[in-house]
Amino acid sequence: MQLTKFSDYALRVLIYVESAKDELVTIDQIASAYGISRAHLMKVVNTLTREGFLTAVRGRSGGLRLAKSPGDIRLGDVLRATEPDFAIVECFSTGSPCAITRCCRLSGVLQDALDGFLDVMDRRTLADIALRPRVLQKAIQIAN
Amino acid sequence: MQLTKFSDYALRVLIYVESAKDELVTIDQIASAYGISRAHLMKVVNTLTREGFLTAVRGRSGGLRLAKSPGDIRLGDVLRATEPDFAIVECFSTGSPCAITRCCRLSGVLQDALDGFLDVMDRRTLADIALRPRVLQKAIQIAN
Repeated sequence: MQLTKFSDYALRVLIYVESAKDELVTIDQIASAYGISRAHLMKVVNTLTREGFLTAVRGRSGGLRLAKSPGDIRLGDVLRATEPDFAIVECFSTGSPCAITRCCRLSGVLQDALDGFLDVMDRRTLADIALRPRVLQKAIQIAN
Repeated sequence: MQLTKFSDYALRVLIYVESAKDELVTIDQIASAYGISRAHLMKVVNTLTREGFLTAVRGRSGGLRLAKSPGDIRLGDVLRATEPDFAIVECFSTGSPCAITRCCRLSGVLQDALDGFLDVMDRRTLADIALRPRVLQKAIQIAN
């Protein structure tokens, strides 16, 4: 069972931006810290900005900062914004080729289990996974 | 967020075999019903047999049947057998390239959420998603 890379990156971006506190962060900084392509991060940042998790400050000394306090960013909400269909099996997305879609009772059970997953994520915020700036920067230095 | 196709197929195989009640089922029957490749199903069936969910009866009129009653097959246990690492993000599997693996607090939260998912699946058994033979066969006829 896997989250999309998109969600994974979104969570990492939020951890990074939170850790920078009042300092604005650029996409290049995040890309370099995590070794993720800039193009991929652009899409992630656009989604996080559009969904009200990040604020993009324009201009030469611009960058990203959190749009609200870390304690107000529920991780379940982040995942809902980045995994819109939560298609845990193929019949959850459109055009399912499964022969028993019309009578299957598994989908209801999987939906309940997904709700169980999101319940936990909804009780945790970015503040619960925040990292002290020095801890984050140290880990990135060692890794790169 | 997605289960592997392997798990998806494993659950479908169990639904099919349960629906056949005392009749033995062949891999060819399941492959044809769901339009899944025989080779892929072989691996799924091998895992389900090895893990004690199915019994394979050998011989010319052999086939598969459930190894225990549907009410004793917990869906959480099936997923544990078919999704061994539950690598919901890449750092859950070995060789993670994420720069902050060493200090990340997200993995603990995701593990709790996964436990929430599996808690629900553990409270459901194959009996909860069983289909009456005529209902299953009718759906398959319409689909094929």
